Amino acid sequence: MTASRLSDASASPLEGHLAIREVPAVFIEALKARFGERCSTVASVREQHGRDESPFTQVPPPAAVVFAESTEDVVDTVRLAAAHRVPVIPYGAGSSLEGHLLAVQGGISLDLGRMARILAVHADDMTITVQPGVARTAVNRALEGKGLFFPVDPGADASIGGMCATRASGTNAVRYGTMRENVLALEVVMASGEVIRTGTRATKSSAGYDLTRLFVGSEGTLGVITEITLNLHPLPDAVGAATCSFTGIAAAVRTAMSIIQAGVPIARCELLDTHSVRMVNAHSRLQLPEQPMLLMEFHGSASDVEDQARSAEALATEEGGEAFAWATTPEARTRLWTARHNAYFAAIHAYPGCRVISTDTCVPISRLADCLLESAAEAEASGLPHYLLGHVGDGNFHFGYLIDPDSAADWGVAETLNKALVHRALSLGGTCSGEHGIGLHKMGFLREEAGDGAIAVMRAIKQALDPLDIMNPGKIFTLGA
Amino acid sequence: MTASRLSDASASPLEGHLAIREVPAVFIEALKARFGERCSTVASVREQHGRDESPFTQVPPPAAVVFAESTEDVVDTVRLAAAHRVPVIPYGAGSSLEGHLLAVQGGISLDLGRMARILAVHADDMTITVQPGVARTAVNRALEGKGLFFPVDPGADASIGGMCATRASGTNAVRYGTMRENVLALEVVMASGEVIRTGTRATKSSAGYDLTRLFVGSEGTLGVITEITLNLHPLPDAVGAATCSFTGIAAAVRTAMSIIQAGVPIARCELLDTHSVRMVNAHSRLQLPEQPMLLMEFHGSASDVEDQARSAEALATEEGGEAFAWATTPEARTRLWTARHNAYFAAIHAYPGCRVISTDTCVPISRLADCLLESAAEAEASGLPHYLLGHVGDGNFHFGYLIDPDSAADWGVAETLNKALVHRALSLGGTCSGEHGIGLHKMGFLREEAGDGAIAVMRAIKQALDPLDIMNPGKIFTLGA
Repeated sequence: MTASRLSDASASPLEGHLAIREVPAVFIEALKARFGERCSTVASVREQHGRDESPFTQVPPPAAVVFAESTEDVVDTVRLAAAHRVPVIPYGAGSSLEGHLLAVQGGISLDLGRMARILAVHADDMTITVQPGVARTAVNRALEGKGLFFPVDPGADASIGGMCATRASGTNAVRYGTMRENVLALEVVMASGEVIRTGTRATKSSAGYDLTRLFVGSEGTLGVITEITLNLHPLPDAVGAATCSFTGIAAAVRTAMSIIQAGVPIARCELLDTHSVRMVNAHSRLQLPEQPMLLMEFHGSASDVEDQARSAEALATEEGGEAFAWATTPEARTRLWTARHNAYFAAIHAYPGCRVISTDTCVPISRLADCLLESAAEAEASGLPHYLLGHVGDGNFHFGYLIDPDSAADWGVAETLNKALVHRALSLGGTCSGEHGIGLHKMGFLREEAGDGAIAVMRAIKQALDPLDIMNPGKIFTLGA
Repeated sequence: MTASRLSDASASPLEGHLAIREVPAVFIEALKARFGERCSTVASVREQHGRDESPFTQVPPPAAVVFAESTEDVVDTVRLAAAHRVPVIPYGAGSSLEGHLLAVQGGISLDLGRMARILAVHADDMTITVQPGVARTAVNRALEGKGLFFPVDPGADASIGGMCATRASGTNAVRYGTMRENVLALEVVMASGEVIRTGTRATKSSAGYDLTRLFVGSEGTLGVITEITLNLHPLPDAVGAATCSFTGIAAAVRTAMSIIQAGVPIARCELLDTHSVRMVNAHSRLQLPEQPMLLMEFHGSASDVEDQARSAEALATEEGGEAFAWATTPEARTRLWTARHNAYFAAIHAYPGCRVISTDTCVPISRLADCLLESAAEAEASGLPHYLLGHVGDGNFHFGYLIDPDSAADWGVAETLNKALVHRALSLGGTCSGEHGIGLHKMGFLREEAGDGAIAVMRAIKQALDPLDIMNPGKIFTLGA
């Protein structure tokens, strides 16, 4: 946290974001007295907690990392931080794409990865209660043999706490919803250190303000989530996964739109452009045709799956799609979806040293082609390495622009593309962020999308619940300007 | 609003709720200058707007009623009210069961019933945008011929604005969700008079705090909802409705639990006890067997509907249920469901002069029998006329206790039953309100359910967004104590 690091950082697009607050030595001493070795000031530990998968690489790391093992640990950390007005940045799996974990105002990282217990499985009610550090794949491992699954699946093996904080979704959202629909109840440590509970295990409720959904998507700025109760879903009787290749993106996108508009209850409907397919083939040793592709999955009874697939195939054929290639075994299916989930890492490996600026617009389904095709042409024309992936059944897609984070020129091209895309999405009734959150990177876009009035409401809520602005400050919006 | 009215009221369980604020004559004059005849101080108009379907009958009416025709009308009303610190109570269809519309702190009623335009139907995106005074049945009329429907259906023909405000649900929630899941975007007039927009027409978003879901269920205490964009659903290819009678409530409830736990994607799963069936028969000229009954509906392809019904019937048979009686024509189906929706009015007509205290607990499905059966026995033993209806697929059910609102004894018996039921539901991991909201009547229960910490968070949000406490004050919680 030296002056030289700060001046390095100001050369990047972080300018204006950094407002490092002082972390008093007496505070760190108090943490060490309370937590012993579970409070680390080792440089490598701090560095690891001071970055994420966002393109921002030049922010000074947090002053310390506390490894919490219980709600009481979180309470004590937050109380101490409040007493010294030090920012607290909750840390799950480190897979944020939007800079959520960066200590742009200094402070400490609160690592919740050791709070990774499954607290209760209520199979008869289709609910599970977990600690925030539990990974999404661990939830499904805990459900093996119970006929149930948890559908929300962002690309990374994110923590459930982090997925709550960013209102994550993934490939199953088109049928099963996002974290917004799949979180029933929370335990939250507020900025005062007070512990509250929101929601119950009942599937619906009209009991007062929907605090659960206020914390889901609050990106650590309103409190630390320390316990989560999730909705589960019955495993479908039958599952069919298929790929379908097209000669161009337009035909693939139009097929996805038709499938949704025809009311086919497709479980997953993913677009990969040629760049994505090429990277995925290389990274996951697959031999998918290097053309734009839809990767689909159908859930239901055996006859239902057949009906859905037949409807989708007919719509694809109308657009010139090739015959469906079926992944008939669970192993083949898992291989395909794992490859899809690893697409981001495939890209990172294809361009060593590069970072990804990921777009995240989501538009009403009828506007998907309008939004996506022009942006794809712009990306192609820019010359910047990029790929396109989409949860197109939701109207949500991601361009990944691969940039050298030290190159102002790369930043400039990527941001120009990003801005044009976001403006297009907003003009079509869409949003700048479908599932990654606002973090650092999309604050300006949020302002355009929501308007000053709605931002003022968000700020008023933040100030009411965190008057010292210690909970992950400088994310979503800043309180200063 | 005389002293005698106030002292009348204090004889009812409203004691402690009433804190009438002064409404300055100059404020009423300003409203009349702005709105002319659309600001009424006629006694009958005020009386009509000062009550709802709750059992509270002795609250003084609002000082005036403003009939808004536009967002600008709402803005000007709220601005004037803010200037004079006068409470504003938004009014839709008047069908609240929990006292939401009563002027317990004085003030004016803001009738939104004339803001009843359908603003846009986007069939390709499965969304509709409406003004708050549009009735739920009017939404579905606007969708005729488009292959789409809006599923949320509380008993009354409520306004969409009111349904947002109470986070309403109804008979379809088990499959299609509640207002929580089916509202995409809002326009809201804040307590300052500022107009904000929340959400977009995209199906999902991670763009900042989920203000949409904060306003959904805020019961008019945070702002006035002036525009709503709703999610729609494709009309199913096939629909099958069936009734099944049982010798006792227990068998009917166990059947509902089994259907949900088996993962049957039933669209509607309603319980009626013998009292309900009897009242419904009399009110709607039906000849249903006067026994506990499940009223079910299945949506899907023709084969799917058959599969679902066969599964449900097998589970019912295991519990001694009779063979399904099918409503084969759309007319017969509509007749059954209309009768079910009118059950509340059937009860009111069966006991002239009585008011209904409606319970609204919702519990995890595995606890439904534990919660419901003991309470049914207690209600039976109390001697108070009552009936039982349930959205049992959600774990949500309503006892209606029919009371003479002037009888302290009736109030006492009903409240004792209600309290025992709520405590039972909370101890089983449930909520005191599944769909009616808190209003006046369940404030104490909310406190028990949510705890002081969560209530403090709700209050802090209210104070931040409505510092003068003019938006429907004294509902959900009070700011005084």
